[in-house]
Amino acid sequence: MLIIGERINSSRKRIAPAVESKDTEFILEEAQKQIEAGADYVDVNAGTFGPEREPELLCWLVKTIQDRFDCVLSLDSPNPAAIEPALKLHKGKALINSISLEKKRYQSLMPLVRDFGTDVIAMCADDEGMPSGLEPKLKLAGSLVEKLTGEGIQLDNIYIDPLVHPISTDHTYGKVVLQTIERIMTEFPGVHTVVGLSNVSYGLPFRFQLNQIYLVLAMGRGLDAAILDPTDKRLMANLTTAQALLDQDEYCMNYIQAHGEGKLDL
Amino acid sequence: MLIIGERINSSRKRIAPAVESKDTEFILEEAQKQIEAGADYVDVNAGTFGPEREPELLCWLVKTIQDRFDCVLSLDSPNPAAIEPALKLHKGKALINSISLEKKRYQSLMPLVRDFGTDVIAMCADDEGMPSGLEPKLKLAGSLVEKLTGEGIQLDNIYIDPLVHPISTDHTYGKVVLQTIERIMTEFPGVHTVVGLSNVSYGLPFRFQLNQIYLVLAMGRGLDAAILDPTDKRLMANLTTAQALLDQDEYCMNYIQAHGEGKLDL
Repeated sequence: MLIIGERINSSRKRIAPAVESKDTEFILEEAQKQIEAGADYVDVNAGTFGPEREPELLCWLVKTIQDRFDCVLSLDSPNPAAIEPALKLHKGKALINSISLEKKRYQSLMPLVRDFGTDVIAMCADDEGMPSGLEPKLKLAGSLVEKLTGEGIQLDNIYIDPLVHPISTDHTYGKVVLQTIERIMTEFPGVHTVVGLSNVSYGLPFRFQLNQIYLVLAMGRGLDAAILDPTDKRLMANLTTAQALLDQDEYCMNYIQAHGEGKLDL
Repeated sequence: MLIIGERINSSRKRIAPAVESKDTEFILEEAQKQIEAGADYVDVNAGTFGPEREPELLCWLVKTIQDRFDCVLSLDSPNPAAIEPALKLHKGKALINSISLEKKRYQSLMPLVRDFGTDVIAMCADDEGMPSGLEPKLKLAGSLVEKLTGEGIQLDNIYIDPLVHPISTDHTYGKVVLQTIERIMTEFPGVHTVVGLSNVSYGLPFRFQLNQIYLVLAMGRGLDAAILDPTDKRLMANLTTAQALLDQDEYCMNYIQAHGEGKLDL
């Protein structure tokens, strides 16, 4: 299970001023607690500052975090003018978050994925929008796989995001994406799937609980990556437990270790 | 989701002496808290007292609980000499827990299911044992459906139990039963599936957590009944949340109500 730590995002109230004022200690603390909690990638986003300031601030985030920690980053932007200089600074294999089938976005970001050999999140969206049904999502997933692998990008580098919509908008949306995940994993063996968990609970009370349970349901359908807050202890306990139950934890060693470290009994 | 409350079982340390001494108040309290927590059936089991005393004690449980509460019971015994008199006393539609393809068990219990028009839990087991693989389980499920419906028993009265084995014994067991549930629900539309949750966690620490997450995974595959402890608040919170995410709770009304009643924020 690949975990992308979502906390360092300028759309979050406490993060924006820290990025804007280049508060190194605050950002390093945010990075450190996500890494310690199990993040494989630390996502960095400076999108709210507009296209003029985003490149500089994204680069600052990459340099600041990698100067201190031996970790890799998820560069969270649709803007190639921010992604490219950040990639040039980045050490190790980065993740680009994200590409889609929107023409302009695809054409400007795909060459960066290919040339820098990054992992990439590929969203089921195109210039007509983000469809909410199973078959339209699946069709976009198929096009993404076909086009990206056609450019020589390996399946193992591609994380398809079927895009989760809030169940408060339509009560079928949660189930549809679960089915989509399973179909993608079955029909394109070797590709990965990823979701941003928190969309599912938008507009409902006690969103943590919905996100925590949706992760389990999605893992049950084959999801193998997620954008989430790894400092949410119950979310991570559920993840560890689901891995034991889904035969992703031989002899339940991780589960038993997590229990020994007090990470389950919350 | 049909919930069978498992607490009144003589194999449990605190229950056995209460059944043996016919402690009415204790048993009524156990029944009441399960009914209030959402049990559709209250399971009653007096199996540990041996075949001579079981009929009388099982009948006492039925009469005692139904004299006080307007509820239906799950008669938990393989022994027709206990089930039959209990059925004669029972008001409303009982559940027989459980039949299997073991010849003697099937031949003695099937007529009771048919003649009393009960619901029935039908375990994937026969005289050769309880197979642990997907295909053998599915074959037994198919035989159960064929034989029971051949006797005129309605699909809607049949709850197939694929039998959960502990993941501490073999780390594939949890996943196999999830796949079995989905196949049964797909291949025999109209039949129900049920599991006794707690077996999955046998031999591992912090079993609650495994049971709580396994319920979610099984619901994700279509499970529509479970034998569980409805007084486990987190288990029930997970159940309510999974229903909202799986399109089993229109407009998330139950979820929102559960939140309002403080049943989610534990």
